[in-house]
Amino acid sequence: MSSRSSGENAREIPEATVARLPVYLRALTGLTEGGIATCSSEELAAAAGVNSAKLRKDLSYLGSYGTRGVGYDVEYLTYQIAREIGVTQDWPVVIVGIGNLGHALANYSGFRSRGFRVVALLDADPARAGEEVAGIAVRPFDELEQIVADHAVAIGVIATPAAAAQSVADRMVASGISSILNFAPSVLAVPAGVDVRKVDLSIELQILAYHEQRKAAVEAVAATDAAPLAPGGVS
Amino acid sequence: MSSRSSGENAREIPEATVARLPVYLRALTGLTEGGIATCSSEELAAAAGVNSAKLRKDLSYLGSYGTRGVGYDVEYLTYQIAREIGVTQDWPVVIVGIGNLGHALANYSGFRSRGFRVVALLDADPARAGEEVAGIAVRPFDELEQIVADHAVAIGVIATPAAAAQSVADRMVASGISSILNFAPSVLAVPAGVDVRKVDLSIELQILAYHEQRKAAVEAVAATDAAPLAPGGVS
Repeated sequence: MSSRSSGENAREIPEATVARLPVYLRALTGLTEGGIATCSSEELAAAAGVNSAKLRKDLSYLGSYGTRGVGYDVEYLTYQIAREIGVTQDWPVVIVGIGNLGHALANYSGFRSRGFRVVALLDADPARAGEEVAGIAVRPFDELEQIVADHAVAIGVIATPAAAAQSVADRMVASGISSILNFAPSVLAVPAGVDVRKVDLSIELQILAYHEQRKAAVEAVAATDAAPLAPGGVS
Repeated sequence: MSSRSSGENAREIPEATVARLPVYLRALTGLTEGGIATCSSEELAAAAGVNSAKLRKDLSYLGSYGTRGVGYDVEYLTYQIAREIGVTQDWPVVIVGIGNLGHALANYSGFRSRGFRVVALLDADPARAGEEVAGIAVRPFDELEQIVADHAVAIGVIATPAAAAQSVADRMVASGISSILNFAPSVLAVPAGVDVRKVDLSIELQILAYHEQRKAAVEAVAATDAAPLAPGGVS
């Protein structure tokens, strides 16, 4: 490894900021859909659910500071963040495991709009081969290596049952895939240099539960306070 | 609103910390599955993908400081965080829209393990009524109000196509649901006091793309550095 490649690493953005960039992108997409062309850091922070000081700090890593008194240009900031993440380029993706979740992922418009192009749907069940989902033919899992080579696939999505996930990951890594998005409820072991991210569909539900619990607590306190004043409240 | 209920609000944890608590919970579950009983803040921070100073600060809101020289007890910290989020209690949930995604969500084990209990699956298509998914009968959407009242449902999940999402949200809110998890690719308008969170399945893919892009850049620099030294590198 050369000193120049270490220097390249040093420019890297903090991991927590990286994780928030797609959230800003989602918030900016919402603003665009709402016909908003410029926004203050406070507005964008509110839309993204972070505080505005953190937002400004995060965007400063990208060299984006907005214009005093005007704020950020929504379209330009969208482009800057998308370029930084790398979603302005084309990412060929394979999805393995075409059950209900695989079907839903193949049909998910949010992948295509972010530069992720599903080049193949693979399933271990040979009976599924030839079936078409979202306009793409399901192919046997054994064609993985050929497909990865043909399309220079770097990212694989695992939507299999938990029991199959590790062997699918092993085959993906052996074929040259270096990033795996794992929807299966299992922990994957992969060699150094391979990134794995696990999707937990319950995370957003948990955030809602936190707020529900707070709302219930506030209502309970309000009800206790109000009770002595309510008509017929003496019992 | 009484001063006591405002006092209750003041204890609220910062939103960014709330959003990280489920991530810590997921990391702790991974440690438990790996047979790890105690962990340092550095280990837990690494597993959760945040820096350890932020982790310690976040956990300090819960009154969790670990034990010097020992670290955190994984099981106890899991309980503390789960209690704070509110997932130690039972959350009845309805899922509306039983297409591929709705099927996948109904079967998703991560909901049940976090206290979310799917009490009903609803679909607008009357032909689907009676079909069974994950052991639960699909019911007509028109039964929403009755089900919400019978089970005291506070959280609704929308897995319909985009075009139907707003009218489903309106009916949910009218029936008393105050938190909505929206998988449909559409922005929902809801009254104040109702929380909506939108799931973007591409967020984790974007984080992978960022790292793929970095890996490719580092490899390109390394290749450039190495070229003059490679045999036959003179052209």
